Amino acid sequence: MQILITGGAGFLGARLARQLLKRTTLADANGKQQLITQITLLDRVPAQGFDDPRIKVVTGDIADQKVINASLTAQTQSVFHLAAIVSGQAEADFELGMRINFDATRLILERARRNGNRPRVVFTSSVAVFGGELPAKVLDTTALTPQSSYGAQKVMGELLITDYSRKHFIDGRALRMPTVCVRPGVPNQAASSFASGIIREPLNGIEAVCPVAPETPMWLQSPRSAIDNLIHGHEIDGSNLGASRALNLPGLATSVNEMVAALTRVAGAAAAGRIRWQADPAIIRIVNSWPGDFAAARADLLGFKRDASFDDIIRAYIDDEMQGIVPG
Amino acid sequence: MQILITGGAGFLGARLARQLLKRTTLADANGKQQLITQITLLDRVPAQGFDDPRIKVVTGDIADQKVINASLTAQTQSVFHLAAIVSGQAEADFELGMRINFDATRLILERARRNGNRPRVVFTSSVAVFGGELPAKVLDTTALTPQSSYGAQKVMGELLITDYSRKHFIDGRALRMPTVCVRPGVPNQAASSFASGIIREPLNGIEAVCPVAPETPMWLQSPRSAIDNLIHGHEIDGSNLGASRALNLPGLATSVNEMVAALTRVAGAAAAGRIRWQADPAIIRIVNSWPGDFAAARADLLGFKRDASFDDIIRAYIDDEMQGIVPG
Repeated sequence: MQILITGGAGFLGARLARQLLKRTTLADANGKQQLITQITLLDRVPAQGFDDPRIKVVTGDIADQKVINASLTAQTQSVFHLAAIVSGQAEADFELGMRINFDATRLILERARRNGNRPRVVFTSSVAVFGGELPAKVLDTTALTPQSSYGAQKVMGELLITDYSRKHFIDGRALRMPTVCVRPGVPNQAASSFASGIIREPLNGIEAVCPVAPETPMWLQSPRSAIDNLIHGHEIDGSNLGASRALNLPGLATSVNEMVAALTRVAGAAAAGRIRWQADPAIIRIVNSWPGDFAAARADLLGFKRDASFDDIIRAYIDDEMQGIVPG
Repeated sequence: MQILITGGAGFLGARLARQLLKRTTLADANGKQQLITQITLLDRVPAQGFDDPRIKVVTGDIADQKVINASLTAQTQSVFHLAAIVSGQAEADFELGMRINFDATRLILERARRNGNRPRVVFTSSVAVFGGELPAKVLDTTALTPQSSYGAQKVMGELLITDYSRKHFIDGRALRMPTVCVRPGVPNQAASSFASGIIREPLNGIEAVCPVAPETPMWLQSPRSAIDNLIHGHEIDGSNLGASRALNLPGLATSVNEMVAALTRVAGAAAAGRIRWQADPAIIRIVNSWPGDFAAARADLLGFKRDASFDDIIRAYIDDEMQGIVPG
């Protein structure tokens, strides 16, 4: 069982790889569990921190045909395609967003089609596929009217995943991930980067800027849930997905206000006091175009997980990334 | 005022050109009527039957960058992008469908973006963008779950039209055309080709095969309405289109049964007797995935037209294409 993870050096990609190594098996094209013999981690920078013979680190541009041809062969039975240019950057650099978010996705699907072994492909989509005038609760049947280039590129990827699956070129699943929070590390150019920043930085004694209004609704999942749901999304029977291979994943509906209240409960008022409120119109425009609440009925039925509370999400971050200790 | 029509040698493209020549003006980027000085008719075969110095006939492959660069310049203020591989053929030849229906659309939009003059672009989309489990009446807010490669390619084109417009690269409009009926000429590889064939052939004393069931719902527009709506779609203020530049055009909700009844009323039982019923599973699968009825509230509000009855549509065909005479 050979697996390809694009964006394999990233936070989610590396965490997914570690969980797969621990799991030892994954479903093949026929739904049978097979021993994982190789996980290729493809990224523009080398994936680090792995010391397992099953891990193969490949560095290259995922929009380069040669790189894809070398990483995705007829022996590759599963692809987790996580690599992307994040929302804020794709909005600022239209060509780069099209190249990585769309062209590379198409290259991967075309290569899989030509390999002829109908691999399972898990594609990470996003709540950014929604936008415009939205109902209070987004349903599985809500129309997609993205208001960012990132969102448009993700919908185009979803459409390819569904059409390639319908034609039996691949067995695809496009998972619309809630915003992953709390991400470790440093801020990135995602418009949603602040959602992790306003928790992570204060926990680490650092000031964080919140660029959106306190009442801004958020739709979140912890990194633990994200990884569990990516693997679950791979394991389900694709034929249960019906007319569209794209799925709203369950998340936690909350708001920036409630996130800060949870931070106060878990880590004290001093931590919450490290948030500086400074509006950023470009981020507000993108984030406010996303829905804040969903009824993810299809995903619930299919057994995907959701986090119970934001307090739990903060505690999980403290456990996973801070050895359980919040510095005074 | 220079205009480009792709698919300019086709039935709709040529008819659109003739109507534009008659009109003499069209709205420019600022909404001001300007004299039409040139209409470039681009197609893979030369457009014929024009004898007007304003018409420029260009023959070439619309998926060829050089052809697009030569046909679409910074002087081109309007593009009607009609060229497409029809539904049945795009389903049979996946690569050709992607190349013409998607890649060529993207080439055109990229060229327009680089030209920097923000032309109006009218893109013909289709009811094939819908599919899967649909409500009895499709609304403007119904989600797009195409069940054909043609439909998926059209949605991807719509998304580009909306995103390029949102970024002010172009001023685009994607019009989801009901099935155009009655088309003159010969059958093509559109899954909907029979809708014209079962009227046109019997009127001309020829047998026609109907590959779908009599109760199959159809969503139709006459060629006259199609042309009026293409031009109207160009003339409206794009900023009125909101979060999505794609629009369900109004049509006539009917069924194959009702079409045959209208044929009997207009041309007699002998004509209707020339229809042979012979099921074609491939066509049935595609056509049955399309909705048969719509509430096109946005388009109605914006002033698009619909045909009053199928009897009128048949009579218009007899007037326009048969000099008003149905042979005994």
